[in-house]
Amino acid sequence: MEATSTTSSAVHTDVFIKMVLSNWEQQNYRLNKFFDALTDSQFEAEVAPGRNRGIYLLGHLTAVHDSMITLLGLGQKLHPELEEPFIKNGDTPGSNPFSLADLKQYWQEVSSFLTAHFATMPAEAWFTGHSAVSAEDFAKEPHRNKLNIVINRTIHLSYHLGQLIFLKQK
Amino acid sequence: MEATSTTSSAVHTDVFIKMVLSNWEQQNYRLNKFFDALTDSQFEAEVAPGRNRGIYLLGHLTAVHDSMITLLGLGQKLHPELEEPFIKNGDTPGSNPFSLADLKQYWQEVSSFLTAHFATMPAEAWFTGHSAVSAEDFAKEPHRNKLNIVINRTIHLSYHLGQLIFLKQK
Repeated sequence: MEATSTTSSAVHTDVFIKMVLSNWEQQNYRLNKFFDALTDSQFEAEVAPGRNRGIYLLGHLTAVHDSMITLLGLGQKLHPELEEPFIKNGDTPGSNPFSLADLKQYWQEVSSFLTAHFATMPAEAWFTGHSAVSAEDFAKEPHRNKLNIVINRTIHLSYHLGQLIFLKQK
Repeated sequence: MEATSTTSSAVHTDVFIKMVLSNWEQQNYRLNKFFDALTDSQFEAEVAPGRNRGIYLLGHLTAVHDSMITLLGLGQKLHPELEEPFIKNGDTPGSNPFSLADLKQYWQEVSSFLTAHFATMPAEAWFTGHSAVSAEDFAKEPHRNKLNIVINRTIHLSYHLGQLIFLKQK
């Protein structure tokens, strides 16, 4: 009985990680496919009247995913300079000092960094606390682990993808 | 060693279910709070020019969550009549035969049904295949389980929440 239980639970751990990462990959695939089909002028347009521009959301998603590097204990942010214009501030005139080409490159760098590190993360490490939860809180709320960051950021990506698609003609 | 491993994996299973359900609950909480603050005329407006109306997205989310009842093996859909206007068809003039009051009630019914059943679902049942995956495919792809449906539908909800928020004045 115990052997069966151990085997069954070990399978679960691999399955959990696969569930979360496959949803993350699927949403990133959709977003990248969408970005690839967008023209420069579409990136410069607002997703809806008076709302964020495509280029702002590209910077925002890059900044949020860059923050995952520190949250997941994978190293230092690749582009900490994005936090001020794309997380602390909204999309206001003159608030973005970066070109579309630069932001596209940063997005690729951050995405590649995360993909490479996710592929080699030991299974147990996914279930340790992320860097923004204290050891005390994590002991009480063990679901606030690194894998949960990936679920949460997948949901966040999808929220903005739902807005970005308005940049395309119907 | 084996005892430790079993304990650790058992903790994972509970933690993992908690991760998925807490993200589901959090997004539903945000959406319900948003719906509660929306006026009837805001529900009738398009989220962006030429895009879906709020009332259509309410019907769409209700229909998609209603489908979770069968996918998760919890019973029959409560409102199968929503599939034709809100899943098979887009938001076209005259395509919605339901009043806002009816749709709000259906949304509450479906949400309450899922909440009650999620609370009593045995842990192991979450890791069985959902009703749209064959036994053969599930043997090869065990991540296509019932809990994965909840992750996926949470991501779907967030996609449309990102659009719905445009109904509110900035």
